[in-house]
Amino acid sequence: MDVTSLRERLASSGQEHLLQFWDILTESQKKTLYNDLNNLDLNEVCGFYEKTVSTLNDEQTKLDERMQPIPAEMHGSVTRSPLEKISQYEDTGLREVSEGRVGVLLLAGGQGTRLGVDYPKGMYDVKLPSHKTLYQLQAERLLRLQKLAKDKFGKCGDIPWYIMTSEHTKEPTMDFFARNSYFGLEKENLVVFEQGMLPCFTFDGRIILETPHKLARAPDGNGGLYRALREKNVLEDMERRGIKYIHVYCVDNILVKMADPIFVGYCLSKGADCGAKVVEKAFPTEAVGVVCKVDGIYQVVEYSEITLKTAQKRNPDGRLTFSAGNICNHFFTTQFLKKVVYDYETSMMHHVAKKKIASVTPEGKTTKPDKPNGIKMEKFVFDVFQFSNTLAVWEVIREDEFAPLKNGDGAEKDTPTTCRHALFSLHHRYLLNAGGTLIDSEGEPLPLIPRAEEQLAPETGSPAAAPKCPTSVNANTEFNNNDAQKEMRWDECPVVVEISPLVSYAGEGLDKIVGSKKFTCPLSLNPPAEKIEV
Amino acid sequence: MDVTSLRERLASSGQEHLLQFWDILTESQKKTLYNDLNNLDLNEVCGFYEKTVSTLNDEQTKLDERMQPIPAEMHGSVTRSPLEKISQYEDTGLREVSEGRVGVLLLAGGQGTRLGVDYPKGMYDVKLPSHKTLYQLQAERLLRLQKLAKDKFGKCGDIPWYIMTSEHTKEPTMDFFARNSYFGLEKENLVVFEQGMLPCFTFDGRIILETPHKLARAPDGNGGLYRALREKNVLEDMERRGIKYIHVYCVDNILVKMADPIFVGYCLSKGADCGAKVVEKAFPTEAVGVVCKVDGIYQVVEYSEITLKTAQKRNPDGRLTFSAGNICNHFFTTQFLKKVVYDYETSMMHHVAKKKIASVTPEGKTTKPDKPNGIKMEKFVFDVFQFSNTLAVWEVIREDEFAPLKNGDGAEKDTPTTCRHALFSLHHRYLLNAGGTLIDSEGEPLPLIPRAEEQLAPETGSPAAAPKCPTSVNANTEFNNNDAQKEMRWDECPVVVEISPLVSYAGEGLDKIVGSKKFTCPLSLNPPAEKIEV
Repeated sequence: MDVTSLRERLASSGQEHLLQFWDILTESQKKTLYNDLNNLDLNEVCGFYEKTVSTLNDEQTKLDERMQPIPAEMHGSVTRSPLEKISQYEDTGLREVSEGRVGVLLLAGGQGTRLGVDYPKGMYDVKLPSHKTLYQLQAERLLRLQKLAKDKFGKCGDIPWYIMTSEHTKEPTMDFFARNSYFGLEKENLVVFEQGMLPCFTFDGRIILETPHKLARAPDGNGGLYRALREKNVLEDMERRGIKYIHVYCVDNILVKMADPIFVGYCLSKGADCGAKVVEKAFPTEAVGVVCKVDGIYQVVEYSEITLKTAQKRNPDGRLTFSAGNICNHFFTTQFLKKVVYDYETSMMHHVAKKKIASVTPEGKTTKPDKPNGIKMEKFVFDVFQFSNTLAVWEVIREDEFAPLKNGDGAEKDTPTTCRHALFSLHHRYLLNAGGTLIDSEGEPLPLIPRAEEQLAPETGSPAAAPKCPTSVNANTEFNNNDAQKEMRWDECPVVVEISPLVSYAGEGLDKIVGSKKFTCPLSLNPPAEKIEV
Repeated sequence: MDVTSLRERLASSGQEHLLQFWDILTESQKKTLYNDLNNLDLNEVCGFYEKTVSTLNDEQTKLDERMQPIPAEMHGSVTRSPLEKISQYEDTGLREVSEGRVGVLLLAGGQGTRLGVDYPKGMYDVKLPSHKTLYQLQAERLLRLQKLAKDKFGKCGDIPWYIMTSEHTKEPTMDFFARNSYFGLEKENLVVFEQGMLPCFTFDGRIILETPHKLARAPDGNGGLYRALREKNVLEDMERRGIKYIHVYCVDNILVKMADPIFVGYCLSKGADCGAKVVEKAFPTEAVGVVCKVDGIYQVVEYSEITLKTAQKRNPDGRLTFSAGNICNHFFTTQFLKKVVYDYETSMMHHVAKKKIASVTPEGKTTKPDKPNGIKMEKFVFDVFQFSNTLAVWEVIREDEFAPLKNGDGAEKDTPTTCRHALFSLHHRYLLNAGGTLIDSEGEPLPLIPRAEEQLAPETGSPAAAPKCPTSVNANTEFNNNDAQKEMRWDECPVVVEISPLVSYAGEGLDKIVGSKKFTCPLSLNPPAEKIEV
């Protein structure tokens, strides 16, 4: 160990404090810290810091005057498109899938801190009747979509699934998939890779020590994707497989339409190198970023950057001018990704996140501060929009496609309960649109929207006394009213419908199965046993 | 007591079971029951039942083909109207207020069962810094509006406040107002009256006994208003005062704009006898009724009556075809009310609500059933739309005007917490629009929309360890950063702004007070002490 030269290099970057505990470290701790610091590209990392903080004041210049909405002709909407058009987009997307040209990329580096779990969010069970995790729902949607594409175009294209994890989520994610036989997917179509980590800095530019021999580090944001695509050779894997289009999405949206053929087809129809699936921003102060242009360049303006004046701006038709609510659901051509990854990635700036970072005291103890004491540096996945020549926005119906899992139950929104209800409600609508009916134990049709008192049962007092879900009158291979689910309170949500993605990707094909039939809740619609083997 | 003749009359209506416990009743119980039954208009009540259930099957006929939206020219919107137009409406409304021609009518018959309290909802404190109840907020909005009208037109018109209570809410409501000196209102401008009650029936048409000597009864719905207006001579009171326009609203909307001059002015500009303030329905299965026409006649189609097909219907511009979401916020001319109350009220049908009704067992014990065992009969306040010649719909921005208090904290929505945050957010926007700024303890401006981590503070673990709200740097007569509120968790909602309705009704006049100034949270904006005396 050449500590003297290390110390010199640290000193020249103003980071010599990283060795402040050197003399009291054990030999093994010394080795750990020495290797860590030796492998750290100090110039790069400190350069990131300098560049990042130097822009801090720039960012204060208000964006208001410089923002323009995405032009209407590039802002398509499922609610404003004729059905034939949507059907065309879908066919285009399915054809690309059947040709094996579409991949999906999952951003799964986050830990479930706000959700209150210490494992990857994708492994979370929101307590559907099937107890499927988010990962399993997504895997089965891919399987179904491959089958739909094959049935339509006669060719079976695989959809490779790239999963970007972080230091904390990689191992558990890989173990989980292996333990579950990849939920029926081909093992080689699953590519798990890890995003990078960056040291955390104090506000005056010193790297923070978490313990006497360990640096405080944090993942480099979901925009760390681009660096990881290069460093982990993921882009090469895509090229090798002949993937031309990538659908990028976040792990936490329980309704995510993996490789959505309509979205893919729409983006292709627009000749876009970049696409953003959005939902209409519901009200001016909704906490959602908007896809727009700033000085003519595509950008997501985050909700914390927008002023009230701009957020309240409306078109003459009453719609918010900046209504393209970003839901982290993107389309990229691999061509575009290649350009970004090899030509532009290093020029992309990090964003500053002020955080409470556990750090070491002069006495060598680790403490967590009460208020932010330093910064993490992050890139965002949408930062690459600025490099797009043609960006297409596709607006979808929020209740059909977006229900994120962010918080534990008890929070105001985005909880396991809201996700579960969003899925039940969507599947209830699939059932109704296919001609099926849900009935209660008296044989009466369940209303489309349960009355509040049915949901809340205020008069029953103790939850233990609440009525249980009735079992089904229909029990055959395909319709299971899962006994295990009788623990679910009927009055908590009278509509309990779960349609396996293996049966239907987005409602298609159900008319033949459920048309004119009546069902009681909880209803689980699964493929016949022999078809489950995929 | 002429029990024989009573028994005969009961028998002729099939209700002789009401005397089944007669022989074991005490004398005083006999007297109670006898008087109760003797005062009951059996023919009327049983007639209600017959008529109501006879329509049950009719109602099954689907409304889909018969529904039309309100024509665009009668569906105005604050988001699609030029500012000058809105300002004209407001002037019209204020002029009518100054002339003393506008009254408000509060529907406050409901008990706070779902909210988990046993007193009237209007007395609920959602834990604003001021701890003002819903009633007080409403009272102060009236005071402010009277002042605005006077300042503008030089005449001081009183806005009489009619409050419809029920058996359970009348006394507590009257006591509460008296105890609080009517919150500065003239006592004679407060008119509290009681809606009627109706017996509950079994499914086969027998009136339910709750105890051996007491009938099960329930309030006759918020549409009981019209009968009460007649029977309690409320309409006469309106005429005596020269009231020409009435704004009817529900107690639970914390953001309600009492006698909203813009709404009143808009309805007058349309020559409407009836008006409905609505919010745009957010998504097809939202649990909200829609104002529309059925066979050409104005109606609110409740969310339980609409089919998925109709709920999903969209205009070419992507908007839901049936988007006029009813928020129980209506305008009526007294002329129209007079017509309804004297000519049509008795022809209005009751609706059936299947309920779990506490009833007596053959052994004389009262039990609460597990599932619905009978019906309550209710009219709805909007049932009178059918009698309107000209109904105007005025669409407002939901986050500005609608945040109902329905459930206790912990429920998914419409809780004290969501109401509190809705009010803080609105008042923050008033402040920003007036040129004020909120800053944090470091002097940095608070973002318009707090970041989620600031709201949830996932990393702090125990709530007890959470940081407290900082006290203010501004303390003078007008800006109080209420010490009593330090119990509120800063990290639960960093934006805590409460502007007294006595200072501003809807954001007006704040520029002179807060323009270019900076404030920390919690911020309470109150009138100077000498002005509080109203």
